[in-house]
Amino acid sequence: MPELRKDPIVERWVIVNTEKPYTSSDFQGEAPVWKGEENCPFCNGHEQLTPPEIEAVRDAPAARNTPGWKVRVVPNKFPALRIEGELDKRGVGMFDRLNGIGAHEVIVDNPQHYKGLGELSVPEIGCMVGAYRSRSLDLRKDRRFKYLLLFKNVGASAGASLEHGHSQLIALPMIPKNVHEELMGTRRYHGYHERCIFCDIISQEKENGGERIVFENGDFLTICPLSSRFSFEVWILPKRHNHDFGYINDAEIASLSSALSEVIRRLNKIFNVPAYNYIIHTAPVNTEAFEEYHWHIEIMPKLTRVAGFEWGSGFYLVQTPPEMAAKYLREITV
Amino acid sequence: MPELRKDPIVERWVIVNTEKPYTSSDFQGEAPVWKGEENCPFCNGHEQLTPPEIEAVRDAPAARNTPGWKVRVVPNKFPALRIEGELDKRGVGMFDRLNGIGAHEVIVDNPQHYKGLGELSVPEIGCMVGAYRSRSLDLRKDRRFKYLLLFKNVGASAGASLEHGHSQLIALPMIPKNVHEELMGTRRYHGYHERCIFCDIISQEKENGGERIVFENGDFLTICPLSSRFSFEVWILPKRHNHDFGYINDAEIASLSSALSEVIRRLNKIFNVPAYNYIIHTAPVNTEAFEEYHWHIEIMPKLTRVAGFEWGSGFYLVQTPPEMAAKYLREITV
Repeated sequence: MPELRKDPIVERWVIVNTEKPYTSSDFQGEAPVWKGEENCPFCNGHEQLTPPEIEAVRDAPAARNTPGWKVRVVPNKFPALRIEGELDKRGVGMFDRLNGIGAHEVIVDNPQHYKGLGELSVPEIGCMVGAYRSRSLDLRKDRRFKYLLLFKNVGASAGASLEHGHSQLIALPMIPKNVHEELMGTRRYHGYHERCIFCDIISQEKENGGERIVFENGDFLTICPLSSRFSFEVWILPKRHNHDFGYINDAEIASLSSALSEVIRRLNKIFNVPAYNYIIHTAPVNTEAFEEYHWHIEIMPKLTRVAGFEWGSGFYLVQTPPEMAAKYLREITV
Repeated sequence: MPELRKDPIVERWVIVNTEKPYTSSDFQGEAPVWKGEENCPFCNGHEQLTPPEIEAVRDAPAARNTPGWKVRVVPNKFPALRIEGELDKRGVGMFDRLNGIGAHEVIVDNPQHYKGLGELSVPEIGCMVGAYRSRSLDLRKDRRFKYLLLFKNVGASAGASLEHGHSQLIALPMIPKNVHEELMGTRRYHGYHERCIFCDIISQEKENGGERIVFENGDFLTICPLSSRFSFEVWILPKRHNHDFGYINDAEIASLSSALSEVIRRLNKIFNVPAYNYIIHTAPVNTEAFEEYHWHIEIMPKLTRVAGFEWGSGFYLVQTPPEMAAKYLREITV
């Protein structure tokens, strides 16, 4: 009998294939076929191929837009939103429209073309996560921005158009729908229980024999969530309750980098480098405080295609139960 | 300046690239590389390769599971849900689980392997749509089912695993989240205006110069919706207010088949056979009446990959404004 499971935060149902679950070998990765670094705008020495840099991490002071950086942040050359202009809201009949004000930045994870997240050292990942925090703290100074969405696409089937490892930050003038639902779900639970639902998930997963736990370090718990939407979905949850990723501390950056490296290397080993997206879920900025929220990272491997059923219903069909995925991820050695 | 647009029904925002919109040649179709009919379970004469048929349309009476049918409905060999059993709801801590009760049927559109929807005649499509209605009316007799989701996946990037043209019907024991949101949006609008939001969209699109209209026939209006999530997304809206697809009449089946054929042939011609999903959006069954709702079909070509940004935010980035897509679709001749 398959099982239907409900996400306690956003009340989304998923169907879990518990009858003939897909094992890890039923999926394929997409080990990159490298196009090479020749025209890559993100490689060290190619700084003139991007718009002027916003910030960069360097060991020693150097002129902007010169080689020798460790992480580099630049505006997206083809931004989804524009930073200049006024927020001009207007209605046309029943339709609402708004100028596309926002920011769209690219964080180049590292200067080397052939190094994915799984090949970076923990301190290298730490530099990247540090740049995430620094951009989050800087962009919120612009009070037009209400939400800072940090994410990464890896592999063509996850929507990555450039192969050199990079992350993106989109600053939005409103709170997106999915985020709003998560905030409301967290608030509803908090209103009733006076506790954070994510803190409760952390305790419940630890008390329940740990069948969905992948691993844990000093500051983070890594699980395959009960109502995963994707096979081998992994969440990295900070143990310290904190609604805003921007308030991550230096020690947490180090543990998070270690956890990220660990998850990605395990996924890479099981699937021969799968395509994936990860997204930092965090509270909005420049609006009422959502201190009941609990920031975290959701990693979604793209092992199957999302089909009509999922689009039509918001209902996901998961071929590998998260308990089984967690066992694979727990037992693989990297 | 890009434009942000809000869907008036589910309050989802999209970013429309109005600055450097993608033209039709910026996308690629995926003209099928046929694997062939040899082991195809859906071909005429291969009836023994599927579970026993549920129903079939034939010109003359014949034994079940024999050749000579025009449309054939069979249980999915690998169903996402099982029809036998009790609805057993149980909680584990904060988590809700339910037995995976439901039905999962396949409607084989036509007996010929190499005929996609664009190659079928309007009467052939009519047989297929007639089978949709017949299954919808039959499955609702099982009062455990609350929602009947009819959809089609075409092409590997839209999640189709078999190349022979087919549709699917999943009967669910609850109302899926996306459907619930649409119902609530429709009800909210109706509560305020005492009018159906879809009927209002139909009038507004016709009054506004028709820039998002693709074409119209006696019973249906075809538009690229203002807040499209996908480039070249097309909605087919019945002009007669009716909340339940099951109540479509014979004349409407004929006009709908003509509209479907027209849209698919136009998309096929522009994109050299794109992958797509379509979904019939309709009111739930065996529950309170949602007569404010207005059933319709949403066709979503899969021309680009959905990336981290969309997953994280429920916010879509649309590269071709719907006004431009409608113009392409209006002007192409097939």
